[in-house]
Amino acid sequence: MLIRPAADRDRTAILSIIAPVIRRGETYPLDRDMSEADALAYWFGPDKTVFVAEEDGVVLGTYTIRPNQAGGGRHVCNCGYITAGEAAGRGIARAMCLHSLDQARSHGYRAMQFNFVVSTNDRAVALWQAMGFEIVGTLPRAFEHPSHGPVDAFVMFQTL
Amino acid sequence: MLIRPAADRDRTAILSIIAPVIRRGETYPLDRDMSEADALAYWFGPDKTVFVAEEDGVVLGTYTIRPNQAGGGRHVCNCGYITAGEAAGRGIARAMCLHSLDQARSHGYRAMQFNFVVSTNDRAVALWQAMGFEIVGTLPRAFEHPSHGPVDAFVMFQTL
Repeated sequence: MLIRPAADRDRTAILSIIAPVIRRGETYPLDRDMSEADALAYWFGPDKTVFVAEEDGVVLGTYTIRPNQAGGGRHVCNCGYITAGEAAGRGIARAMCLHSLDQARSHGYRAMQFNFVVSTNDRAVALWQAMGFEIVGTLPRAFEHPSHGPVDAFVMFQTL
Repeated sequence: MLIRPAADRDRTAILSIIAPVIRRGETYPLDRDMSEADALAYWFGPDKTVFVAEEDGVVLGTYTIRPNQAGGGRHVCNCGYITAGEAAGRGIARAMCLHSLDQARSHGYRAMQFNFVVSTNDRAVALWQAMGFEIVGTLPRAFEHPSHGPVDAFVMFQTL
């Protein structure tokens, strides 16, 4: 697997990975009916660097990294990861997370924070814990899950 | 004291209130050297509603309210408050917070979240706790304080 910076030619593949996740509305606090243009504008936000995970020329996942705050909070980064549905369970999220931790360290970040991990997203929570993140905050019923109703969201954090 | 929506004519007064706080860099994770235009663009961000607290025609404080997340997180709002330095200790932050809680309820928000309360900002932490907020998360050394060095930041939350 190759993880590399996203190029313009990857936009269609990235959209095909992130759109189904946004439409399901189970893991990201984004409007489920946002336009494809808005979805791409969100993923390629001005403060973000975007990477893709590729195997045999096929993009199977994508992640973004950005400073989580400005000013006195700029040394903490934030990432978001999405794996293609058909590629789940193959370690792509783990590989992207490892890559992002390397990126963070090499860019001088001193910590990584996830602001909003939906508590029912068990696989993600377990994976991030296995990767060294701790739950440092619980936001009570902060996420309206489309099938479970109001559920908690976690703030997860790792000092680098 | 009158708390009312901000108008275009308030922009100069608002800038004179928020700029010194941004320049000091002790409480908000914003770039201390951001331009005045960027400071106003931040305060009047597209997703925000801005209010001012006024006494005898003089603006003494300002606050913003916005959804903290989109999609399944849209029922939780986020606010930021700044009081004019010369008006500190007169209950303006408390009045603005009460007003914002009313606004939040009347707009159907079900909770209010502060994402980044610098732990050394004792007066703010104590005031928010007195207003019903709880510390639901601690971000270790997430803020580089200009005189204290790396200090924790709190996530504070109140169900409405």
